[in-house]
Amino acid sequence: MHSSPFQDTIVALATPPGVGAIGVIRVSGQQTVEIVNSIFKGKNLSEVPSHTLAYGTIRDGEAILDEVLVSVFRGPNSYTKEDVIEISTHGSPFILQKVIELLIEKGARTAKPGEFTQRAFINGRFDLAQAEAVADLISSENAAMQQTAIKQMRGGFSHEIKQLRERLVHFASMIELELDFSEEDVEFANREALERLIAEIQQTLRPLIESFKWGNVIKNGVPIVIAGRPNAGKSTLLNALLNEQRAIVSDIAGTTRDTIEDQLTIEGITFRFIDTAGLRETTDTIEAIGVQRTQEKMKEASLILYLIDLKRTDVDLLNEELAPIIATGVPFVVIGNKQDLLSSDEMADWQKRHTILPLSASSQHGVNELKRELVSRVRENKVSAGQTIVTNSRHYQGLLRTNDALEKVKNALSSNVTGDFLALDIREALFHLGEITGAITTDDLLENIFSKFCIGK
Amino acid sequence: MHSSPFQDTIVALATPPGVGAIGVIRVSGQQTVEIVNSIFKGKNLSEVPSHTLAYGTIRDGEAILDEVLVSVFRGPNSYTKEDVIEISTHGSPFILQKVIELLIEKGARTAKPGEFTQRAFINGRFDLAQAEAVADLISSENAAMQQTAIKQMRGGFSHEIKQLRERLVHFASMIELELDFSEEDVEFANREALERLIAEIQQTLRPLIESFKWGNVIKNGVPIVIAGRPNAGKSTLLNALLNEQRAIVSDIAGTTRDTIEDQLTIEGITFRFIDTAGLRETTDTIEAIGVQRTQEKMKEASLILYLIDLKRTDVDLLNEELAPIIATGVPFVVIGNKQDLLSSDEMADWQKRHTILPLSASSQHGVNELKRELVSRVRENKVSAGQTIVTNSRHYQGLLRTNDALEKVKNALSSNVTGDFLALDIREALFHLGEITGAITTDDLLENIFSKFCIGK
Repeated sequence: MHSSPFQDTIVALATPPGVGAIGVIRVSGQQTVEIVNSIFKGKNLSEVPSHTLAYGTIRDGEAILDEVLVSVFRGPNSYTKEDVIEISTHGSPFILQKVIELLIEKGARTAKPGEFTQRAFINGRFDLAQAEAVADLISSENAAMQQTAIKQMRGGFSHEIKQLRERLVHFASMIELELDFSEEDVEFANREALERLIAEIQQTLRPLIESFKWGNVIKNGVPIVIAGRPNAGKSTLLNALLNEQRAIVSDIAGTTRDTIEDQLTIEGITFRFIDTAGLRETTDTIEAIGVQRTQEKMKEASLILYLIDLKRTDVDLLNEELAPIIATGVPFVVIGNKQDLLSSDEMADWQKRHTILPLSASSQHGVNELKRELVSRVRENKVSAGQTIVTNSRHYQGLLRTNDALEKVKNALSSNVTGDFLALDIREALFHLGEITGAITTDDLLENIFSKFCIGK
Repeated sequence: MHSSPFQDTIVALATPPGVGAIGVIRVSGQQTVEIVNSIFKGKNLSEVPSHTLAYGTIRDGEAILDEVLVSVFRGPNSYTKEDVIEISTHGSPFILQKVIELLIEKGARTAKPGEFTQRAFINGRFDLAQAEAVADLISSENAAMQQTAIKQMRGGFSHEIKQLRERLVHFASMIELELDFSEEDVEFANREALERLIAEIQQTLRPLIESFKWGNVIKNGVPIVIAGRPNAGKSTLLNALLNEQRAIVSDIAGTTRDTIEDQLTIEGITFRFIDTAGLRETTDTIEAIGVQRTQEKMKEASLILYLIDLKRTDVDLLNEELAPIIATGVPFVVIGNKQDLLSSDEMADWQKRHTILPLSASSQHGVNELKRELVSRVRENKVSAGQTIVTNSRHYQGLLRTNDALEKVKNALSSNVTGDFLALDIREALFHLGEITGAITTDDLLENIFSKFCIGK
């Protein structure tokens, strides 16, 4: 039995509620084997080896409640590093509820959300950032989310943070040492080396901080704004991409006044398409608000799909029309809609003078090419293989605060302040880095993190 | 590797759909170990012993999909008697779907509903009646359903059927033997012994057949009709039992015109309460139909709660009023409502002359006593410990047909028909008994039974 600071044994349903072929109940804690043994008839569970399955029945007094399989994990070789037993029953909510009631009767108590993972963290199975990735992994809805979460759970991001922190700790201890000898005016910590280290750490922090925008995108979808003049066919394109009638389409310019959003997952990447009001001067008040919103949405987008009606747009005036789009600084693709209405000569003229992606939103021609273009843009620009991506806003805040503290250290160094002030700022940076991995925690922090988990994890 | 007639390997999600701490994917078939091995990185699964758990990762090419625990069961020591592996992943529907897709890519195919249990049946793990009990167990919603299903799954009912059948088989073979020697006019099968056996079998069949009514009740709830004169307080009593405002209550006699049903589970027994239109002569057409329905419902009930208004009912005329209730032949309890309006002397007079259960539906006084009375009546009369209960209508039909065939054998015996006709009728009885346990099956029958299962079982 691995020593764990927890005295009580917790129990919860680990599988989703509802009827299924099987349901799994998880028990963890010092009395796990004893409690399960008291309602299990089969092998004596205190004698079976770890990582084996035993077949038997769950008894409520003399009555047989179910035939079950129990998986026995002896601490520390378990999820929580405590003794863990998973009881696999037939998937009747009634039976699952009864078994949990019996276990509580015998001395277990209901686990709070995330309590198994919290124990895993406190018992040193993984750090806080890894524990948080477990929740992200469970709620992952696409390949990008899943890949980011599993890398994180396996320690990728934590590893970088820990390395940074260790190097800072080394410096901090040197400075603290100086403080002990402050009357002798020695410098154990080389100030130039510290400056170099801080520059190096900030260089490591920067891509992590910047990755958060993309990390957020992974969780919520890559925002793609569909913009263009009224009647260019924006809503028709949205419908074509989603393959359903999502937006109201009409020939009347200004039909779409509010922005319409919908998600589509292509090759594991979730895109959030935002159809917008057409960009034009307007006297209609609601439409004017719509145009303003379009401009806001464009600034927040990862990519703008700027749609033009090839038939009605003057090939000479396109650059002029694009000026406000270029001004946003957001990458954009010009989509030439209604290509089916052009002669091949006209089309050739367009292709010669502008980089456009031609398609026909109404006949769906070229829509798959556009989807491929979107995926390849995301893959090329955003997720370079192996790059660490920050998706958790708590981590993001921690990184920002670390960076701020390092700025203060830099300023302190350049203004030649005494070692004790320097030590204070370095400690602050260490604190924020430590909060990310859980090297430094408060009960409130833990409560807040684990309460977001689902029950049974 | 146990020999199984199935060439292909099947896969399905075994836990309910949705987000949970964990999800379990079940794989069964000849290639189970090979297929799972091809996406699992950890121990070589072809080398791990049966009934052990291995920790590792599921890989999609180089990408890690999840960290998992796999449970390995080597046939015939598994649910299906084939090699079975259960993969326990983090409970993200995305991850579960991806793992299933990978397994299919590597050669498994999606299991049909109930296909794991169907294989268990065909590979001889249990008979058909037991296999059907697995589905009942999973869908069991109360203690009575669960107890009936688990007894059945563990072979209780099948055992009785098999014994009956074996004895009939013995007789049948004797008669068939006679047919081979028909020219010699010998009697290997003692006709009197056969008559005795048939009487004995029918005596065993009868309680099984009769138990179906009760078995059905376990599945659908014990039907309890609340009857009585208009304005006796029937709807108020229903609401008091359910502890909610289910029925519309008013002072106007005849408020309830259609029957209202609702379920309530008390101490693991589900009751189906049926509130009815008050019993009186009426000129209102709809109310008249209601009264007729009440009479029909009363005949189908397990128990009638006959409600009287103690204040307005003449203590001398109660027996007269009860006559039509007694005529139904259904057990009933007289409930004396509005006891709070009576003086203790009046109450004593009632108690002296009639067996009534006094309560006040409006103040809930006595409602818990009524619930206890209902539970004890069910326990005493219906489920005597260890009694076998038939809940499956297919089994019920099989038993009825067996009984019919045995009646024909009896008639044949008394009219001294020749052995070949006798053999025909006995074979029919054997056929119907065999259909229940699956000793005799058709593909249609199996298809029909297992298609009602949930996926993954």
